[in-house]
Amino acid sequence: MNFHYLTAVRERNPLIHNITNLVSAHFTANGLLALGASPMMAQSPAEMAELAGISGAVVLNMGTPSDEKVAAMLAAGKAANLAGVPVVLDPVAVAASSLRRETAARFRENINFAAIRGNAGEMAHLAGTAWQSKGVDAGSGSGDVAEIARKVAQTWSCVAVVSGETDYVSDGIRVARLQNGVALFPKITASGCLLSAVVGAFLAVAPHENAFQAACEACTVYAVAGELAAEGLQNHQVGSFTWRLLDALAAISTEQVAQKAKITML
Amino acid sequence: MNFHYLTAVRERNPLIHNITNLVSAHFTANGLLALGASPMMAQSPAEMAELAGISGAVVLNMGTPSDEKVAAMLAAGKAANLAGVPVVLDPVAVAASSLRRETAARFRENINFAAIRGNAGEMAHLAGTAWQSKGVDAGSGSGDVAEIARKVAQTWSCVAVVSGETDYVSDGIRVARLQNGVALFPKITASGCLLSAVVGAFLAVAPHENAFQAACEACTVYAVAGELAAEGLQNHQVGSFTWRLLDALAAISTEQVAQKAKITML
Amino acid sequence: MNFHYLTAVRERNPLIHNITNLVSAHFTANGLLALGASPMMAQSPAEMAELAGISGAVVLNMGTPSDEKVAAMLAAGKAANLAGVPVVLDPVAVAASSLRRETAARFRENINFAAIRGNAGEMAHLAGTAWQSKGVDAGSGSGDVAEIARKVAQTWSCVAVVSGETDYVSDGIRVARLQNGVALFPKITASGCLLSAVVGAFLAVAPHENAFQAACEACTVYAVAGELAAEGLQNHQVGSFTWRLLDALAAISTEQVAQKAKITML
Repeated sequence: MNFHYLTAVRERNPLIHNITNLVSAHFTANGLLALGASPMMAQSPAEMAELAGISGAVVLNMGTPSDEKVAAMLAAGKAANLAGVPVVLDPVAVAASSLRRETAARFRENINFAAIRGNAGEMAHLAGTAWQSKGVDAGSGSGDVAEIARKVAQTWSCVAVVSGETDYVSDGIRVARLQNGVALFPKITASGCLLSAVVGAFLAVAPHENAFQAACEACTVYAVAGELAAEGLQNHQVGSFTWRLLDALAAISTEQVAQKAKITML
Repeated sequence: MNFHYLTAVRERNPLIHNITNLVSAHFTANGLLALGASPMMAQSPAEMAELAGISGAVVLNMGTPSDEKVAAMLAAGKAANLAGVPVVLDPVAVAASSLRRETAARFRENINFAAIRGNAGEMAHLAGTAWQSKGVDAGSGSGDVAEIARKVAQTWSCVAVVSGETDYVSDGIRVARLQNGVALFPKITASGCLLSAVVGAFLAVAPHENAFQAACEACTVYAVAGELAAEGLQNHQVGSFTWRLLDALAAISTEQVAQKAKITML
Repeated sequence: MNFHYLTAVRERNPLIHNITNLVSAHFTANGLLALGASPMMAQSPAEMAELAGISGAVVLNMGTPSDEKVAAMLAAGKAANLAGVPVVLDPVAVAASSLRRETAARFRENINFAAIRGNAGEMAHLAGTAWQSKGVDAGSGSGDVAEIARKVAQTWSCVAVVSGETDYVSDGIRVARLQNGVALFPKITASGCLLSAVVGAFLAVAPHENAFQAACEACTVYAVAGELAAEGLQNHQVGSFTWRLLDALAAISTEQVAQKAKITML
């Protein structure tokens, strides 16, 4: 696999509009900026259509839903669809409440997503596969995670990213298994939220027909940045990892990514 | 005093549902995750009852109140009471406005708290004791802080934690004086908010009748983690302390806590 | 120029009430606390008048506007005006949507600002000068930035701060050019939001007639703290810079500021 979208992100600084939760807003904005994108985090339904029009991608994060935020997400998603701007969904804890399940169902009816990024539990819910989640955690299940990625991609007509110790990316036909990453990732909050935003940044600079490759590259860049950030750290150094990840996202080169990438087409 | 709930938090990873303010949400979530608990920060009234049912504890933080957030807190608190899930109150700046004073009064009428954690000024207000606060700061007063802890515990029928340079914990009969901690704590925002959440994590793994001991252990673990984080730091290194505290919460051992604990039963 | 307000901020610990966005709330609060001020971040319209009365300054940040937040800002601004408390405006991305443009117009009709701090694109909009912005970024234009500062100061009857690689501060007559700072500032989110809050902290301890000097000192203290924080860092170390800036804000001395200040009266 060639890697060429990281450079494009840095050269074009795409505006990534994130409608996100109050936990991850600062970290996500800092991560996007470190990478080379330009974050925007507005949430008022009244300005969603205008902002979608100037955005390179729109990322909808269900982390702390509210009536107003869901209205804003619907407005932003529809406007982005009209403008041809890719929309990414992060279905945080989608199975945890009827509010979230119903919100996801409304999104599916009203918005065409270019990509969806979630953990195994969240994606299993979207795929209609049995799974045992707990709150925002991935939980565990007997399902085949690669198959979950493929099924979400097929039923939602998008690129699906199931992230975890191993990531699986599918466009409904192909499935890539990505084995970069470190154990520190799940020990910091918002690491999944930021990955969803990073996927948005890569989709913003890729042609629509290359969304699968762009998502694979986004996940690999992010995971390798984590590997660089974790060098020399012990597993309890979660606070150190948080800011080192930002340093690594700003420093990482295409050569490092190409050299360390562990991507297998299944 | 024996310390055994830290291990329980790490083994059981209780889901701690925090309805909190926009300042402390990220730091609180990261702190809980570092400690070994699983944070959830949802705020929509529509999903509070469902989430309370799957939570190990619910923490209500009055930091940036809004109509919707207060409605969510009331819904979550009542649902947690019905489900037997412990509820912790953090009465941020409770004396600073009539909105906050009235919110606290509504909470008292509608929710049974397992614990309340605040600074001296906030707790003096809940105890009905004269005190001079300024905004979110503790302020100063002539009251006996140990007596304030006891009075809040008695009048609210809960464990009361008055945190500061010295912490006082009371169940209405006993009062423990805890003398761990460092001068850097009040120099970072949300350090009190995170302590309230940590108290929630310890209550989540303790039998109801051991809430007093669990709160004492929570405060001591947190304060000793601060001591470890501050080792080698100067008093102006507030930024460094923020992330080192997360490292320390993940690294701290029961042995370190037992060795450094300074707990006196008054 | 003499520098004496930094000491006053540390001695008087003014309460700075920020109505701000969900991205910058934690960082702004930590930055103010590091500097020696006392942050308050409440947002409910119901408590704005009471809190304005006990505040040393009120800072209105348009970063993530909502109906409720705009109502709160209007209430806080008017109450602060009545109480003689200085009000600072941060017009984040003011040109990006009609919601923001109209909100700024409502603010202008209803609130007297002591200072406005924005990037060149935002301030050009307030001055009615042609400029090309993109989202929250400064963008680029052919306007004379010093003239933009003067024009905003004249038309809004306040001290205007245009921040960027070079800062320009004007009271409508005088214009100061401030040339401290480092390339890492625009690589972290909320660095402008925090500067606006720091301006508020300095206005809180200065007599009204010295607002121009206080704003110049605030910008210089902040920029020199950035220089100290960046010592030994490479340009990609954006995560490191974030927490080192907090350390530097707590450590910086008046002597360091006086020694490094690069202020030119135009």
